[in-house]
Formats: sequence, structure tokens, C-alpha cells
Amino acid sequence: MTFSFTGFTARGGLTDHHVDGWGVAFYEDVACRLFIDEKPACQSPMADFLKRYPFKSRNVIAHIRKATQGAARLENCHPFMRELRGQQWVFAHNGDLKGLPLPDCGPYAPLGTTDSELAFCVIMNSLYTSVDSQAQEPDDLFNVIEQLTRTLNRYGIFNFLLSNGDVQFAYCSSRLSYVLRDWPFTSAHLIDADWTVDFGALATPADRTAVIATTPLTDEKWVSCQPGDLLMFCDGQLRRQAHVPVPLEVLAMSKYAPSEASGLASTSSR
Amino acid sequence: MTFSFTGFTARGGLTDHHVDGWGVAFYEDVACRLFIDEKPACQSPMADFLKRYPFKSRNVIAHIRKATQGAARLENCHPFMRELRGQQWVFAHNGDLKGLPLPDCGPYAPLGTTDSELAFCVIMNSLYTSVDSQAQEPDDLFNVIEQLTRTLNRYGIFNFLLSNGDVQFAYCSSRLSYVLRDWPFTSAHLIDADWTVDFGALATPADRTAVIATTPLTDEKWVSCQPGDLLMFCDGQLRRQAHVPVPLEVLAMSKYAPSEASGLASTSSR
Repeated sequence: MTFSFTGFTARGGLTDHHVDGWGVAFYEDVACRLFIDEKPACQSPMADFLKRYPFKSRNVIAHIRKATQGAARLENCHPFMRELRGQQWVFAHNGDLKGLPLPDCGPYAPLGTTDSELAFCVIMNSLYTSVDSQAQEPDDLFNVIEQLTRTLNRYGIFNFLLSNGDVQFAYCSSRLSYVLRDWPFTSAHLIDADWTVDFGALATPADRTAVIATTPLTDEKWVSCQPGDLLMFCDGQLRRQAHVPVPLEVLAMSKYAPSEASGLASTSSR
Repeated sequence: MTFSFTGFTARGGLTDHHVDGWGVAFYEDVACRLFIDEKPACQSPMADFLKRYPFKSRNVIAHIRKATQGAARLENCHPFMRELRGQQWVFAHNGDLKGLPLPDCGPYAPLGTTDSELAFCVIMNSLYTSVDSQAQEPDDLFNVIEQLTRTLNRYGIFNFLLSNGDVQFAYCSSRLSYVLRDWPFTSAHLIDADWTVDFGALATPADRTAVIATTPLTDEKWVSCQPGDLLMFCDGQLRRQAHVPVPLEVLAMSKYAPSEASGLASTSSR
């Protein structure tokens, strides 16, 4: 977590231009710590504290923000977090949705003014009404998320990461990559900082990690997702995959706004 | 905030025995930062970071935990936070509730195993069903909280602090004090650390603060609440007050468990 976070936060103003805030959520079993800040990640004392503090987590979602909608304010920083029936849900978005209506019922509504938090509230209100409290199985959740993605991706670019602490969903609307690390581990060098870690020396055969990010964080062999790929990771493995086509008009938008987007990164580990 | 927090965290293992975790929530306008840790506050690197980092907030709720129910784990640390219809609600409890049933409907359920988080979820589910989205006026909220307190205080000792970032509710089931600071300000000395602040030199006539805590944090003249007092603070003022009698059997419990309780502290400022 410290390794990936160091490379990732460098993109918050140092090696890239995502200067409108940042955030990271990490699950510790059922609880989730959320740190958000409206300052650029490379200047944030809190990001600096986190780089030095050895939190351990099997499930992390991080975000560096390049604002499209909503000012650089705390309530507009990703990831967003909501509790539903005893589970913390965390969401981060890279893209730009236009014309999504405010929820007219359900418990969840945005604090801030981003399209992203609004989309998350739509997802959470749907999960509240459509997923029975007794049936929060990963495959049931996948089916609901797949339907919601089909509805929401019509509003614009919608790359996202979503987790309930157990599984992690990732959708590629325009750009997303991942790498799977498994035994025997090799070493990896950060693209955004001069730091190499030999995972072979640190990890055991029981370890396994998936790292998902807008663009690769290391010099390892990353898998480049296709627009429309919806992935579900669990315990460091890719567990299920579906294709939710990106509407043609949204694909066209992506071509003109690739470098304007925010950055997403997450890890799922066993 | 830095001043009160320094005295308060000393009680997390240094000048008092609340060693089972701590937490602090501070609102920045509509958003709320929550920091919780299962380590004793006096040993926590995160508490140390917060004492040095000058966050500004008009509404803060802090807690140091002496566990009665639920292990020293992250999900059991107060304050607890939930979002409802675009507002973050924060809750901290000092006491011990027995036999409170789990929610059978509504979006909110506990992550952890404390009576406190369960009581908070009962409050949030009730606010969701009984407060209309158009009528979140402080006085309407007060009426709902008063009714809920009448129901919940039968289950045991129930000192609590609750806020939506706009107003702050405080209930004294066994022990709670507050102090109002207003122009002309005087100086105050911490009871738990050797630190005096001259608020007269720092504040302006427009400033005003209410500090609420289980026991006084400074050598100022604190008001000692009576068991049953339900208070609503807003912009550093006591706005409304009601009496919700504590059942006799609960009053009797309080006599035998006064030093076993967790510590609450909050500030409401203009």
C-alpha cells in the first residue's frame, strides 16, 4: 500500500496534473478508514503522514482529482463512502457525467456538487431497494452493478472503482489497467518515483494482489482493459467479467478528453 | 480544537484510563472528516498528527473509549458517522445499553458489535422514516431526537453527542458538563496538560463557542448537567433544552459505574 500510494500521489501535482484533491479508503476487516483532502496530494501533510504510516489493508481505493464538475472542496473529494446494512461501500470515479437527475427517494444524497457522488448515491439507493439484506452474495451484487452500469454509462465517461470491503468492482469506460501479482513474485519499479520493491523477498506463496489503475503504476506487465469491461476482483483475483458496451457518443467524448481525467487506483489482496 | 483535543487525548491512557480507542469527527462546512483509531489516544501516531495539524472546524465531536461492549477494534471506535439525504450525521456515546434489538428494516445497521453503534443506527433509521426531506429544521429534529431519547434511555446509561453539522444534540443520562465562551473571552488552563490559552487575545467579538464534555476539560466555570437534560447547541449557543427523565433503574446503575465510562467532548462554534 505504501509503495503504490507513493507512486500514485506523485501524480497529484508532481509527475501529473491532478491537483484538485485526493483521497484513499482502506478497509481493515469490516471497518474502513477514509482520508480525503482538497489540497494537491504531493503537498498534503496528510498524504505525507500516510506514506510513512504502515497501515495494512486487503482492499484499498485511491483517487487523485482533476476537477470537471464541483470546486476543489472537501465534500467533492473521492473516494466517497456510504454505509448500507452493516457494510461500508466506497466509490471513486474518473470521467464526466452530464444530466444525471438527483435522487427523489432513498436515504442517500450527495453532500457536494460532483456528478460522481451523485452517481454513487444512485447506485447506493438502488442497492438499498434491489438487494435483499439476506442476499449480498458477490454474484448477486455483480448482476445489480452490471444493470446500474448499463443505465449510468449513457450519461458520459464513467470509469469507476466500487467496493464493499469484500469484493471490488472496476468498470472501464475509456481507460483502465490492472496487474495481478502472484507467487513467484518479481520486483517492480514505480513509474512516478525512483523506488523498486522486490515482492519475492516480502511475500509468501499464500499472498496474491490485484492492482487496478487508470494507467500502469509500475514497469510490470499490466493488462489494458477494453472500454465496456466490467470486472469483479476478490482476494487478489479476477473473479468475474462482463461487457457493458459504452455508447458510441460516449466513446467519441473519450477521444477528446483523455488527459483531463482524474486518476483511480486500487488494490485487492488475499 | 487543538487546545481541547490535547487535554482530551491525555485522558486516553495518560491522565485517565480510556485506552480502547479514540476518535474525532470535524465538520468543514457540509463535509466531515472522521479519524478513528483502536490504539490508546496518548500512543496513537494519528492523534499526534492531528494535534500538530491546524484543522479548522465549527463543529467537532470527539470520544475516548473505555470498552463495555465490543473489542478494541476499529469498527467499534466512536464517533460513528452516517450520511442521510445529503447530511453527515455523527454520534458518540458514553454508557452501556442492554437488550437493544437489531434494526429489522431501514438502510443503516452496525458494522461492529457495540451497543452504541446499534443505538445510532436505530436513530438514523428513525430519522430516515420520520423526518421528511423538506423539513430538516432544527426544532423538528429536536422533537424527533427527544422522542428517540425517551425510547432508548430505558435500555441503560445513554450519555450521547449527536450532530448533523448544523446543530449539536447532547443528552445527559448520568454525567455531562458544558461551558460557553463568549466575548469578552478570558484565559483557560487545561486540567489534563500544562497549557493555558488566552482566548481574549485570539478571538473576536463575533466568536462564540460551546464546549461539551463528560467532565470539565479546563479550569473555567462549567455547567454541570442534570441527568435527563437534553440540549441543542447551534453556533456556540444553547438553543433549546428539554428534560427526558432517566428511568430510576438506570439512575441506580449510574451510581455503580461512573468511572468505567468512556469520555465525550465536543465543540459548537460560530
